[in-house]
Amino acid sequence: MIIDRLYDAVSRKGPVCVGLDTSEKLLPERLRTASPLSEAILEFNRAIVDATLDVAACYKVQIAHYEALGTEGLACYRDTLSCVRKKGALVIGDVKRGDIASTGEMYARAHFSGEFEADFVTLNPYMGGDVIAPFEPYLKKGQKGLFVLTKTSNPTSADIQDLRVGTQPVYMHVAQKLTAWGRPYGGACGYGAIGAVVGATQQEELVALRRGFPSLFFLIPGYGAQGGGGRDVAPAFVAGNGAVVNASRSILGAHRGRPDGDDRYAEYARQAVVRMRKDIARWTDK
Amino acid sequence: MIIDRLYDAVSRKGPVCVGLDTSEKLLPERLRTASPLSEAILEFNRAIVDATLDVAACYKVQIAHYEALGTEGLACYRDTLSCVRKKGALVIGDVKRGDIASTGEMYARAHFSGEFEADFVTLNPYMGGDVIAPFEPYLKKGQKGLFVLTKTSNPTSADIQDLRVGTQPVYMHVAQKLTAWGRPYGGACGYGAIGAVVGATQQEELVALRRGFPSLFFLIPGYGAQGGGGRDVAPAFVAGNGAVVNASRSILGAHRGRPDGDDRYAEYARQAVVRMRKDIARWTDK
Repeated sequence: MIIDRLYDAVSRKGPVCVGLDTSEKLLPERLRTASPLSEAILEFNRAIVDATLDVAACYKVQIAHYEALGTEGLACYRDTLSCVRKKGALVIGDVKRGDIASTGEMYARAHFSGEFEADFVTLNPYMGGDVIAPFEPYLKKGQKGLFVLTKTSNPTSADIQDLRVGTQPVYMHVAQKLTAWGRPYGGACGYGAIGAVVGATQQEELVALRRGFPSLFFLIPGYGAQGGGGRDVAPAFVAGNGAVVNASRSILGAHRGRPDGDDRYAEYARQAVVRMRKDIARWTDK
Repeated sequence: MIIDRLYDAVSRKGPVCVGLDTSEKLLPERLRTASPLSEAILEFNRAIVDATLDVAACYKVQIAHYEALGTEGLACYRDTLSCVRKKGALVIGDVKRGDIASTGEMYARAHFSGEFEADFVTLNPYMGGDVIAPFEPYLKKGQKGLFVLTKTSNPTSADIQDLRVGTQPVYMHVAQKLTAWGRPYGGACGYGAIGAVVGATQQEELVALRRGFPSLFFLIPGYGAQGGGGRDVAPAFVAGNGAVVNASRSILGAHRGRPDGDDRYAEYARQAVVRMRKDIARWTDK
């Protein structure tokens, strides 16, 4: 089961997920002015992956940054995913898709096979269980997993996710659904192949979700640039596992402020991952 | 305002939105066996658009069907959008994206400028108002609009959308938000540039939404293949306007069952649009 591979990666390398949300402004000077931009981004991503392979649990590639560059950008998205997978690491396609029936099948085909194949993808649950169903044939084979938006890290996540249904907010109902949907795809590690996206800035919610749903693996964005720290994400963990914490800007942009001509951006990225791992371990290690 | 252009198109040509969800199995024999598939799909889409320009209000292109074919498929998505726009018709990029901050900005850039530029895109509201914000700079200029998932046509749309918050289901709260978010972008026609996606199979909900939110323009999928008919969608209309009704398979696949070698698939598609327009007019014309 894919979730056992992720669990094992966290055990061995810690819970940092490196977010390859590579935009032009995060590139060092030399690459920012290179042409075409998509090739510069791919060179940058490759170097970051090489430098962090032994200290990162996995990678998350935010497709929007590539979609914005059109078909050329999407070729770079494809090559970034394949670079991570060829090196034997796990990659999450952060696509937040969510559609039904034949359309859902097309998204599943797009992101679990063919050019854009990832190990996990993120999904949006607004349309309900029909969003999950087209991905299940892949889950059944044990080699793919999902992370579904539950309680996100942005200010207006309250608009829908916090609406109260009976005594519980919407996101607790979503977590309940995820647990049920993920039940057939449980790994030996005790977590299911359908996990939840929960923001690092939502500490109370994280406590309630971990307590209520012990079999949900969490993908936690919002660390660093968005304001969350090791202390905030600690409640997600049980014995140092059960979650990965994503950071992007603070890792990819760790080289910023260094003198021009200093091309060690990948080394600085690695140092940022190690610092982040320590910051989290401080609050999660017993 | 873009919404006035859509309103005008419905007035002149009726409310049919042609869904270019072109998958291999909808192609006629001659094109289904052509290579590469993405070029065959583009030829098919062009012919459908040419044949329906004067009887369709607009087009909706479901990106999933193109994403499933990788970068080549996305080039075909790009060329399909540009084909519709060059002919002066309106096109909805059915992308159902929904993300925040810099990621949301990247999606807005991807789908409102550059290669994948559409006139409208569909969005998913689960992350709240932060999903809309990155698109607002484009809305402000008056040339772009949004359709946001509200109450969808699929069986499990109830999972989240029907949860009761106080006396109202979640989707009524979403509609309320959309009305507020769309207020600054109202057109002369009385509708705003932020519309709602509401399924054709949800007649009662359509009645409640139309009554409660007279300034929301509706995009209604689920006609035909998904089970909705003219009678079901009628409550969405006020004086024959205020909504577009999407059909895909029943239009693109109207040629099916004809003898092999009969290449008039575009003509049959046109006839299907005209029939659908009549079916809706029967229930909406006073």
